[in-house]
Amino acid sequence: MSDVRILEIKQSVFADNDKQADELRRELKAKGVFLLNLMSSPGSGKTSTLMQTIAAIGDKVKIGVMEADIDSDVDAKTIAGSGAKVIQLHTGGMCHLDAAMTRQGLEGLETGDVELAILENVGNLVCPAEFDTGASKNAMILSVPEGDDKPLKYPLMFSICDVVLINKIDVLPYFDFDMEKCIENIHMRNPNAKVIPICAKTGEGIDEWTNWLLEQREIWIKEAELSN
Amino acid sequence: MSDVRILEIKQSVFADNDKQADELRRELKAKGVFLLNLMSSPGSGKTSTLMQTIAAIGDKVKIGVMEADIDSDVDAKTIAGSGAKVIQLHTGGMCHLDAAMTRQGLEGLETGDVELAILENVGNLVCPAEFDTGASKNAMILSVPEGDDKPLKYPLMFSICDVVLINKIDVLPYFDFDMEKCIENIHMRNPNAKVIPICAKTGEGIDEWTNWLLEQREIWIKEAELSN
Repeated sequence: MSDVRILEIKQSVFADNDKQADELRRELKAKGVFLLNLMSSPGSGKTSTLMQTIAAIGDKVKIGVMEADIDSDVDAKTIAGSGAKVIQLHTGGMCHLDAAMTRQGLEGLETGDVELAILENVGNLVCPAEFDTGASKNAMILSVPEGDDKPLKYPLMFSICDVVLINKIDVLPYFDFDMEKCIENIHMRNPNAKVIPICAKTGEGIDEWTNWLLEQREIWIKEAELSN
Repeated sequence: MSDVRILEIKQSVFADNDKQADELRRELKAKGVFLLNLMSSPGSGKTSTLMQTIAAIGDKVKIGVMEADIDSDVDAKTIAGSGAKVIQLHTGGMCHLDAAMTRQGLEGLETGDVELAILENVGNLVCPAEFDTGASKNAMILSVPEGDDKPLKYPLMFSICDVVLINKIDVLPYFDFDMEKCIENIHMRNPNAKVIPICAKTGEGIDEWTNWLLEQREIWIKEAELSN
């Protein structure tokens, strides 16, 4: 196992997170760093999905990953095995990252030539949804074992995400999970959410996901050019 | 589907939650209401485990259930199907319940002859661990698909729980989950935690769990008698 850098994140002192997030988004646009905020419940497969993502497009864009957790460095160690740039962020018990905390993480990561920065947020369907991190796009993973009713119970998370990956579709035969009902529940919360069923274990659906991600980055680059 | 009562919980105004929790615990002891605080990630199987629990011991103790969620009433509707007393609590976006919020829930439930009150907390491994609800015992569910490394990432939750139920053991063959390693990780956080593998779908392990629960209630009754 390679040693990974661990950054202890300090709690933010800024009252106006939305303003901090907009500023960070502007700065990242100027630097050409597309920031993806990846959220989910604990154990939905964020790190496995990132491993597949890096394997699929790591040669097309320079990827840097921030692994946020309350404790441990197991995820950063896993990502380090992919060869991607990575830093482990410790939130000191906090249940989410806000824009100022994300800024600390990006500074710790030393973005440099990074074109796609990915924040793996704390595993939690409630608090991370309440804080704009300054990301260009919000993604979330819902895994099959969690059930198709989650959009009913965690409305905000589903309403702020641009894309919902439905992970662990390889175990669909063993769970009472209605894919059609789940997509219906997601679109009730957010009609514009892109939904992509995937399996981070087998790689199924990863192409559709990474194509979507690269496409969003292209659109974002064109928007930046137009606004200059 | 039966109609269930829904209570909109108000945010607490008390600064000293630990004091509120101790007061509530004392009052519940005087009333003979054993309160269990049940926590887990979203979709770990809290409601299914409660259904099995009610089926197993609902004729031995009078059970009342509080289903806390940010939105929806699907869980309370499910529990209502068991015939147990139930109320749905809406937290208004809040990620946890504290003692004063739990008190509101108990008042809404109208405990009356309830001997075992169960709070199904918001699905979240972070925030609920930080707030003493006034419960006699804390229980949590970790499900197999979430992975055996969760005690490393969510230390507080595992350290405050008296019992950890490892749910969905029927799907062990389909996941890379090392039961021995998981129990080792749990005991690293909390050497005194009782660990019980269960399957809420098939009923496996439910007897061991409900025996433990009834036993804890017996001990608690004896303690109450001694302190009088």
